[in-house]
Amino acid sequence: MSAPPSDRCPARLAQVRGALGRSDLDALLVTSLPNVRYLTGFAGSNALVVVTPLDCLLFTDFRYATQVAAEVSPAVTVHIEPASLWKGVWGRLPACAGVARVGFESAHLLHQDFARLLEQGSRWQWRPTTDVVEALRAVKDAGEVAAIEKAVGIAESAWRATVPQLHAGLTERQVAGILERALREAGSEGFPFPSIVASGPQSALPHARAGERVLQRGDLLLVDFGAVADGYCSDLTRTVALGPADSRQREMHAVVAEANRRASGGIRAEMSGKDADALARDYIASSGWGEAFGHSLGHGIGLEVHEAPRLARGADAPLPAGAVVTIEPGIYIPGWGGIRIEDDVLLTATGARVLTTVPRGLMELH
Amino acid sequence: MSAPPSDRCPARLAQVRGALGRSDLDALLVTSLPNVRYLTGFAGSNALVVVTPLDCLLFTDFRYATQVAAEVSPAVTVHIEPASLWKGVWGRLPACAGVARVGFESAHLLHQDFARLLEQGSRWQWRPTTDVVEALRAVKDAGEVAAIEKAVGIAESAWRATVPQLHAGLTERQVAGILERALREAGSEGFPFPSIVASGPQSALPHARAGERVLQRGDLLLVDFGAVADGYCSDLTRTVALGPADSRQREMHAVVAEANRRASGGIRAEMSGKDADALARDYIASSGWGEAFGHSLGHGIGLEVHEAPRLARGADAPLPAGAVVTIEPGIYIPGWGGIRIEDDVLLTATGARVLTTVPRGLMELH
Repeated sequence: MSAPPSDRCPARLAQVRGALGRSDLDALLVTSLPNVRYLTGFAGSNALVVVTPLDCLLFTDFRYATQVAAEVSPAVTVHIEPASLWKGVWGRLPACAGVARVGFESAHLLHQDFARLLEQGSRWQWRPTTDVVEALRAVKDAGEVAAIEKAVGIAESAWRATVPQLHAGLTERQVAGILERALREAGSEGFPFPSIVASGPQSALPHARAGERVLQRGDLLLVDFGAVADGYCSDLTRTVALGPADSRQREMHAVVAEANRRASGGIRAEMSGKDADALARDYIASSGWGEAFGHSLGHGIGLEVHEAPRLARGADAPLPAGAVVTIEPGIYIPGWGGIRIEDDVLLTATGARVLTTVPRGLMELH
Repeated sequence: MSAPPSDRCPARLAQVRGALGRSDLDALLVTSLPNVRYLTGFAGSNALVVVTPLDCLLFTDFRYATQVAAEVSPAVTVHIEPASLWKGVWGRLPACAGVARVGFESAHLLHQDFARLLEQGSRWQWRPTTDVVEALRAVKDAGEVAAIEKAVGIAESAWRATVPQLHAGLTERQVAGILERALREAGSEGFPFPSIVASGPQSALPHARAGERVLQRGDLLLVDFGAVADGYCSDLTRTVALGPADSRQREMHAVVAEANRRASGGIRAEMSGKDADALARDYIASSGWGEAFGHSLGHGIGLEVHEAPRLARGADAPLPAGAVVTIEPGIYIPGWGGIRIEDDVLLTATGARVLTTVPRGLMELH
């Protein structure tokens, strides 16, 4: 058994304090809920956190009184606010010693709340920060990897239960219903993003959802979905053929499968996100389909289904050991269809471990 | 058949221009995606819109090229941006005549993007606005009411299919799976919020999700869920007993049902949100359970599952005719359980029409 998540909070708070010190900041206002969860253990939907040199203050409302007591680390001081969480901040922050310059999360603070800082919080100096907590979250510890592996296992179990039920005549939405029920049966806490079930020409739209189209024999069927376990996400895509595949479907699927294999086999920690992206992109381009792979290769997964690091053309930063990323090359041809094969991969100091195990070959369903 | 949603966009854009004129603004930068959808018809997940005196500019990325062409109103000029949507704004806005003062949505603009306005958009005067589009959205037209009624019908059909399958021994998550599959079978485009399936003592937590608890004979089971149709949401809660209810369960359920009946029967357009809330709250308080009804009576539903207007103690504004709101009184007793009964109600000039029809009496399942 891994330790409960909140056991890791004191070490994470120490890392945040170290990062603040290097930026000449005394404290950090945390408004991103996944960052709140990472630092305190609290999984509710309404919270503000201030990490100070000696304390970590968490403000939430009465609806979460029971939950917050069960979830948060003893390193965190909880305040249940009867009115506004901001009122709590302005009431408690003056008593925190040594707090003058306070960072806030520029990517997670709305303008209306930024205006509060300037008006009601004018006794402090506010400084925008980016990625302070996100950079820590990019490197998973053993407990986080175990949670992601659990979420991968749930998604794979649901996929295995769904495949035998797929057939022409179902709508995309009915397929989503079969899959989502299987995810719940396998224990998923929820759905990390709206399931994509895209058939025939719809599969050429990288951001299709699940619509009213009726599956036809001869279609490609692209299914992109995930599970949630202990708050952590998995993200998986397979593309199958309904009935015997034709030669073009087989050929295109083989190109994507080989791109996936090269990227999963070649990716390493310390490689840049751009170089990782190129492992798949260069192969697809050499096969003549470069224009048809219009999105990036992948992204980190964890408490959010899209988080750091990015595997993309513009990503120069080295990938950290301990990151868990998706590898999801695809080819999309308007009017014909699309193919994507997505796995979840853990980067280690010595290589890469593919967490997803369901077959990647082209399944031809009957 | 109602007209397709984008047919209503020119009238909505005219209303926005009228509101801007009254605030001495020339244009509005729209960063809320539901507001983008309301004004342009576009339902994708990446867009910026600028409403100018003579045009409405929509910026999105290549992934949505097909979708945006199918969805948007001819009153909108679409720009597919190869790089950043913001780059598109800075490239196109200078050509728009008569644009000097531009409003932005203070509740839907992140600090990092506000910083862009000040840096890259320094040739315009930026002014925070609140609720410009939200105030229009609070009043539904006939097509919107029809979409909400469709979403209510889907949710009710799913509920009717689920009830006969409920029994002790299932986990809350399995119940969620049965219900969510039924929602898909009935045609739901997705889930407007994570389903709440809370049994026994869990039902006392107003924001429980669906966990691993196994349903027991004698439990109360609270189920809060919704459907999506044509982008519009429904939101429905019923609380049932697993096996014969005991006298306390019956008594408490009757209090909540009567509070629901009084509020649904007494609510009127032009009443304040506070007075509507009091219709249920005063009755629950007079029954001795005032402390146990800790949340507000309801909220508007539409493109979002929580939108204007609010039915709550602090809501002084009159409720507009044409609003569709939830009415969801509840009683929650820690350690014992909770009961909530939630309906969706359309406010008209002459009264209120309850859209939800599934029985509100206490069902005792076997």
